[in-house]
Amino acid sequence: MNLEEEIDMYGRMAMAIDVIEGCQEFAYLIPEVRTNLVYARTDAKTKEDVMGIDGRITVVSGRPHAAGKPKFGASSHMARLIIEIRKADPSLRSGMDFANNPHLAKWLEHYCQANGWVFSVIDRRLEPEEIKDAEGASMPWKAKAAIEAAGGKVPKIFYETGAVGKEPVSVLVGREPLVVAQQVCEIARLYYGERQA
Amino acid sequence: MNLEEEIDMYGRMAMAIDVIEGCQEFAYLIPEVRTNLVYARTDAKTKEDVMGIDGRITVVSGRPHAAGKPKFGASSHMARLIIEIRKADPSLRSGMDFANNPHLAKWLEHYCQANGWVFSVIDRRLEPEEIKDAEGASMPWKAKAAIEAAGGKVPKIFYETGAVGKEPVSVLVGREPLVVAQQVCEIARLYYGERQA
Amino acid sequence: MNLEEEIDMYGRMAMAIDVIEGCQEFAYLIPEVRTNLVYARTDAKTKEDVMGIDGRITVVSGRPHAAGKPKFGASSHMARLIIEIRKADPSLRSGMDFANNPHLAKWLEHYCQANGWVFSVIDRRLEPEEIKDAEGASMPWKAKAAIEAAGGKVPKIFYETGAVGKEPVSVLVGREPLVVAQQVCEIARLYYGERQA
Amino acid sequence: MNLEEEIDMYGRMAMAIDVIEGCQEFAYLIPEVRTNLVYARTDAKTKEDVMGIDGRITVVSGRPHAAGKPKFGASSHMARLIIEIRKADPSLRSGMDFANNPHLAKWLEHYCQANGWVFSVIDRRLEPEEIKDAEGASMPWKAKAAIEAAGGKVPKIFYETGAVGKEPVSVLVGREPLVVAQQVCEIARLYYGERQA
Repeated sequence: MNLEEEIDMYGRMAMAIDVIEGCQEFAYLIPEVRTNLVYARTDAKTKEDVMGIDGRITVVSGRPHAAGKPKFGASSHMARLIIEIRKADPSLRSGMDFANNPHLAKWLEHYCQANGWVFSVIDRRLEPEEIKDAEGASMPWKAKAAIEAAGGKVPKIFYETGAVGKEPVSVLVGREPLVVAQQVCEIARLYYGERQA
Repeated sequence: MNLEEEIDMYGRMAMAIDVIEGCQEFAYLIPEVRTNLVYARTDAKTKEDVMGIDGRITVVSGRPHAAGKPKFGASSHMARLIIEIRKADPSLRSGMDFANNPHLAKWLEHYCQANGWVFSVIDRRLEPEEIKDAEGASMPWKAKAAIEAAGGKVPKIFYETGAVGKEPVSVLVGREPLVVAQQVCEIARLYYGERQA
Repeated sequence: MNLEEEIDMYGRMAMAIDVIEGCQEFAYLIPEVRTNLVYARTDAKTKEDVMGIDGRITVVSGRPHAAGKPKFGASSHMARLIIEIRKADPSLRSGMDFANNPHLAKWLEHYCQANGWVFSVIDRRLEPEEIKDAEGASMPWKAKAAIEAAGGKVPKIFYETGAVGKEPVSVLVGREPLVVAQQVCEIARLYYGERQA
Repeated sequence: MNLEEEIDMYGRMAMAIDVIEGCQEFAYLIPEVRTNLVYARTDAKTKEDVMGIDGRITVVSGRPHAAGKPKFGASSHMARLIIEIRKADPSLRSGMDFANNPHLAKWLEHYCQANGWVFSVIDRRLEPEEIKDAEGASMPWKAKAAIEAAGGKVPKIFYETGAVGKEPVSVLVGREPLVVAQQVCEIARLYYGERQA
């Protein structure tokens, strides 16, 4: 155990949750499968080395609401995704998933261009059957596909199209969860601002 | 407002949540989209007349956990589904969704036979495109398809196969949420008991 | 177990909590020891037969907030108080405690007069030493003292002056918790309205 | 705003809450007025510069439970107490209050001796009337009295005897909340271990 690292992780996750719960517009970007936000130890090897939000972020009284507390091992999908992403760029320790629809996808693509961010799209219908069925094998495939689709770079945001029985999500990655939460909430505010204008 | 009806609704929903939160095995039957439990007023017309659990039921510390409180209007999908089901049988005021996989589907079919319950399966790939895309049109289709697949009877449990981008769920319906919760928890206990045996 | 009675108890307690949490002014009437609201079974004998709010009602984000859920056995002080009160009038099954200061005491006395409610004051410095020290003996003394001070009637509201080491509280009693909560919240709204006027 | 300091504060408070909520024995040391844990900024001047637990720590399902989240400005009493204590020793940024009874007082005195910790007792009946009545004036008096009673040193733990209308509490102070929480929980475990032995 590295006490300084843990204090930093608990601190940034708590502040990130305050940012998310304070952004009402983000309630509209929470997918049916709910959102998780993860933060990996610098030497993370398994999901137990990755902090996630227990019970994920859901919507209560019309606002984003963390169902439980940040905890090591609380995420499975997003934790395994960030572990894979870090094989390509170990500086990326955090990620957050959010809604996904064709209109938002177009918007995100332009937003990434305007910010100089890499954006990529993966088509989960291309995921081989033997990978879909093997527990835990989807995440390495998704990470690899997102990087390949971006010409070898790790995308800042990637979008996936849905497969049978799977709700697609968008994912934004970054170095730490406070900035990741601020970036996703900025997207929620701008996207809904524009739609209402 | 009918005070006696509301007291009954708040009371049975609270007791149903205690049943669900007290059943650890149910944590394994919570789908990615999370579970909701609904209870409709006797004269329910819109989702505002149906009580649901705000933020749905998620998993915290390995146990089922209601993210918020029972509230009128808190459910959208399950509320609209029970409104449709009641057009065929108004005595059914409650429903709950849970996990769905081929192994569980077989098990549920046998369990329903043993209990003399009607069981049916709907194939969401058959859902017409114009219905999938129209906001709110899926639920009437699902209810109708589940009843048709049961030869005109309202099934006690129905199962759906997934469409692109949609996680499939199983649904159990009944007269009131306390018994519905007890029935779903009984399924969770038996199903996981048998798998471990 | 009497199912109908339990449904009524869970239902009214849930609705009463919604009333209390929706009344911001009540936050100012929550004493340091926090508030509890209790509801006794018709044949209550011990605190296990009385429903209370687990963790009491505290103040979060400036608003009244039930720390846990209504539960049989969750209250000790207020549960034992209502059990004693019911020896004089079994129709009274619910009670709630709240703040207490000399200004509020005067106001409550006038408010009770205006409503035709019995009001009484007890002086806890008169509580015999042997009763103070005996675990659980204070409540019978308090109930008796409140009734004596009201000339043999059960007061609708009673007020106590503090003893060494004990924060004094005011108590309002009634037949069921939904009306008790509405009455206490009405007091909070009127009292703070007048102070601000 | 000092970002590094805030991350440290949110992080240590979150970890301290996990320590407290994980210590069942501490439930018995929570006073009627409930417990708070505070952590002051290095340059704290008012309660808004001190982090506390919103809604305090209460008991739910028999276990210590933080009613809300750590927040700047969430504590009033304990925040003002630590601000006063820091005038004598600015390295002390955290404090936590807990139960208080004559048996525990004796035990704490011996425990402090064994640990080489300064312990002192203050008698709140000696608090001048004009201070008791002036909002916010009690804390400076308490801090001063606790230091005087310890011969000019800041005590590690101090105990107070109750005044009329005030529940007495014990207070433990330290440099940061994670160690403060661990020290209070160690006391809870040892004290209840010895009583049961």
